[in-house]
Amino acid sequence: QHPFVLVSGPCVLEDLDMTLHIAESLKKLTDQLGIDFVFKASYDKANRTSVSSFRGPGIDAGLEMLAKVKSEFNVPVVSDVHDATQVAAASQVLDIIQIPAFLCRQTDLLVAAGNSGRVVNVKKGQFQAPWDMKHVVGKVASTGNEQILLTERGASFGYNNLVVDMRSLLIMRELGKPVIFDATHAVQLPGGADGASAGQREYVAALSRAAVAIGIDGLFWEVHPDPECARCDGPNSLYLKDLQPILESLLAVDAVVKNR
Amino acid sequence: QHPFVLVSGPCVLEDLDMTLHIAESLKKLTDQLGIDFVFKASYDKANRTSVSSFRGPGIDAGLEMLAKVKSEFNVPVVSDVHDATQVAAASQVLDIIQIPAFLCRQTDLLVAAGNSGRVVNVKKGQFQAPWDMKHVVGKVASTGNEQILLTERGASFGYNNLVVDMRSLLIMRELGKPVIFDATHAVQLPGGADGASAGQREYVAALSRAAVAIGIDGLFWEVHPDPECARCDGPNSLYLKDLQPILESLLAVDAVVKNR
Amino acid sequence: QHPFVLVSGPCVLEDLDMTLHIAESLKKLTDQLGIDFVFKASYDKANRTSVSSFRGPGIDAGLEMLAKVKSEFNVPVVSDVHDATQVAAASQVLDIIQIPAFLCRQTDLLVAAGNSGRVVNVKKGQFQAPWDMKHVVGKVASTGNEQILLTERGASFGYNNLVVDMRSLLIMRELGKPVIFDATHAVQLPGGADGASAGQREYVAALSRAAVAIGIDGLFWEVHPDPECARCDGPNSLYLKDLQPILESLLAVDAVVKNR
Amino acid sequence: QHPFVLVSGPCVLEDLDMTLHIAESLKKLTDQLGIDFVFKASYDKANRTSVSSFRGPGIDAGLEMLAKVKSEFNVPVVSDVHDATQVAAASQVLDIIQIPAFLCRQTDLLVAAGNSGRVVNVKKGQFQAPWDMKHVVGKVASTGNEQILLTERGASFGYNNLVVDMRSLLIMRELGKPVIFDATHAVQLPGGADGASAGQREYVAALSRAAVAIGIDGLFWEVHPDPECARCDGPNSLYLKDLQPILESLLAVDAVVKNR
Repeated sequence: QHPFVLVSGPCVLEDLDMTLHIAESLKKLTDQLGIDFVFKASYDKANRTSVSSFRGPGIDAGLEMLAKVKSEFNVPVVSDVHDATQVAAASQVLDIIQIPAFLCRQTDLLVAAGNSGRVVNVKKGQFQAPWDMKHVVGKVASTGNEQILLTERGASFGYNNLVVDMRSLLIMRELGKPVIFDATHAVQLPGGADGASAGQREYVAALSRAAVAIGIDGLFWEVHPDPECARCDGPNSLYLKDLQPILESLLAVDAVVKNR
Repeated sequence: QHPFVLVSGPCVLEDLDMTLHIAESLKKLTDQLGIDFVFKASYDKANRTSVSSFRGPGIDAGLEMLAKVKSEFNVPVVSDVHDATQVAAASQVLDIIQIPAFLCRQTDLLVAAGNSGRVVNVKKGQFQAPWDMKHVVGKVASTGNEQILLTERGASFGYNNLVVDMRSLLIMRELGKPVIFDATHAVQLPGGADGASAGQREYVAALSRAAVAIGIDGLFWEVHPDPECARCDGPNSLYLKDLQPILESLLAVDAVVKNR
Repeated sequence: QHPFVLVSGPCVLEDLDMTLHIAESLKKLTDQLGIDFVFKASYDKANRTSVSSFRGPGIDAGLEMLAKVKSEFNVPVVSDVHDATQVAAASQVLDIIQIPAFLCRQTDLLVAAGNSGRVVNVKKGQFQAPWDMKHVVGKVASTGNEQILLTERGASFGYNNLVVDMRSLLIMRELGKPVIFDATHAVQLPGGADGASAGQREYVAALSRAAVAIGIDGLFWEVHPDPECARCDGPNSLYLKDLQPILESLLAVDAVVKNR
Repeated sequence: QHPFVLVSGPCVLEDLDMTLHIAESLKKLTDQLGIDFVFKASYDKANRTSVSSFRGPGIDAGLEMLAKVKSEFNVPVVSDVHDATQVAAASQVLDIIQIPAFLCRQTDLLVAAGNSGRVVNVKKGQFQAPWDMKHVVGKVASTGNEQILLTERGASFGYNNLVVDMRSLLIMRELGKPVIFDATHAVQLPGGADGASAGQREYVAALSRAAVAIGIDGLFWEVHPDPECARCDGPNSLYLKDLQPILESLLAVDAVVKNR
């Protein structure tokens, strides 16, 4: 029974210096706390609310930045892919290929990700019942690749709001795959701000505690040194400087739940 | 910072012997674990799915049974009232007057409960936004009675299903009143069985851990020595014999969250 | 195959003059259009969002006003009852006893209404699956009274919003009872204004056309000569002066759907 | 004020003979009724529930079949594209490029579709508020292409169910683009059968009437000569032989609503 893994980083790659700074901070903190760490950042935000939103450095420059994080700090890295043509390049660098929630039923993308031989992390769609993730697992596993992670990030609840159905963590775990809770996307208010998604950072710590208390294998957080200036998902990102006490409390809950 | 209070008992009063047996077991267990205990049971199930369902002993016989529980074990008791005319009699016996979720906006009932001088526990309606409970609090408090408890028991999520929005525990707490999580009603599948509500007992312990991890003042559980034979809400009631290890784990989480 | 019946009037009884004025206007208009008419108004709004909201003249004065409407214009009248104790007095005057949506599962109220011998109109709860209305029908019909109407008024869809699932009109019709569409409550935004429900009057005509196109037995509208000054539900009430062209269009759709 | 356009055909291209048979039948019927007709069929079902489900002939063979339909019957054709790389080939044949609902926020796909110069039909995601389609329109229109259609196909309503919020037809119309109602996908029960989506064909005609009564520019139906044997979406497809009386009734409603 291991503590939860922390999958964390900025929403989108901004510049190399900041990327390395965030990775280094997270690596130090997780080493100190005895938590396994995976660095996460997107090279391209392919489904921003508005066409004029910042999308990131693109796949080539982005993968280069992620490769630097990987070599410099010796941490695994994860990022999103958006169609099957990106998988070959991405799997050269990424340890974990992530399938965005809206794309969690796109067969070609899931199969390409499976064929890469990398671990595949699929985010459950906001429209998807947790038990129906078994078919998603089946699509990836049809390639012979059973290294699959499943991530909860909230379900549609009326308009411009998501709800976390904590039962889904248990239902997905019964599919035999590790389950991750994406606490920072779960508090998004999709499209809730004009031309961008709003978010509720104030609930991230509490929902994370709830998920850890249910029992999870990993926790996914978007973090930023200065979320007010983040180029994507600032309203739901955590302040880098605030993480330590939250993680300590989560580890204590995790230890209770996993009888460590 | 106290541990959560346990509000517990059978869904409906069946017979006196069983009532006393359940109360005694719960009293012993909570004393041993250092948890405050309130005995809960309904004298009348006024909104069963079907007209032919068992409703309980009625208000007079029911209050008598509750009075015996109270005197025999020296525990406070709580039960539902269903219209303003019941409040006078009920408040002779009950320490806490409970307002059912469907009735959480009925002004006369809330005002009558407030005027009783007893503590009033209002269950949030399945149709009600958590921030709108401020108006419910206002109705009770208009009587000068500020002893109000607010209970989360799930929100409508499509048909025949409820979801617990864990954010609601935090939102209601901001109203300045103690918040209770009703874990056994939260796993009901309303009307999901033909002529009765189905339930998912298997999620009660995990959802309770999640709510305790968020931080709550009380936990509400329907329990029964033999839920398969319970005359109401069996599918979501916990087995009396199973409570101890669950409560111990919850207390450990509660201690972490409340820094005890 | 008859045209739909119009059930209409102000949300709440304000004063007698206005009440008679509205009733007379509606009676004239429906006579002219060949539509059967039932006058509707509440004597008590028992579940307003806030304790300080206007509630109406109360049962005695209210029933007196409704009796005047009935005798003066020779129209049937309908109003809400809120607990079983009101049914005896109400059924002296009312042709149709209406059960509010939040109370649609309260067994005693349904049975009392059934026993009155009057027609009983039950509004489907915002939390209730349409197929589960069969148990509601069963509660009323347990008294031997089969004169039951079922009304759709929207289902909970996230917080502070309702959605009309038009399938419900068909599902409830299969229960063998006439189905009414309450278009003005269906566009409420419950609790959406601070301390009162907001509403979307602009969608009433279109949703009414949709329901009539599905095929309904009755249409329920709250109307007011001056909704901006209405003491309840103004934002979703129709202007009395606007009804004629809307009704004419609805009658034309109704004739198509019912092959008249 | 024109009658609604009918966009119709089988869910997926099966074989050429059946394709031509369906197209010919629909062309004859719509000519006879004076309805404009667009033939619809998918060359690839890219997000079936299960990896082993039939997906169609693929893009090359599929576009060839669609080209034959177009030349033989002189009708415009529409089909889905699933990533930006497909748009160039697809726009050689298709008159309308369709963006699937799950992909309605994928910027690259929307921009590629816009750049094709073809009409772009975007299905509103099951997770998307209707007002947020303005940003989707903005993505396509950023290419200078303003020929955009918006399609309603239901919103997530709990698990394994969709609800049609008829208000969305009006809200999307305010964006200044023609609005289509996809009645056969709106009655899907996503993932509701084991390994495939179930559907409720019995509600298609009534929901279509409701949408036409609201006022729409187009109606989208999947049809099949033998839905029980259809290789995709059989449970929600209409029988080809049943269309005429339904369309006649819809035309009559359409004429009332549009004052023709």
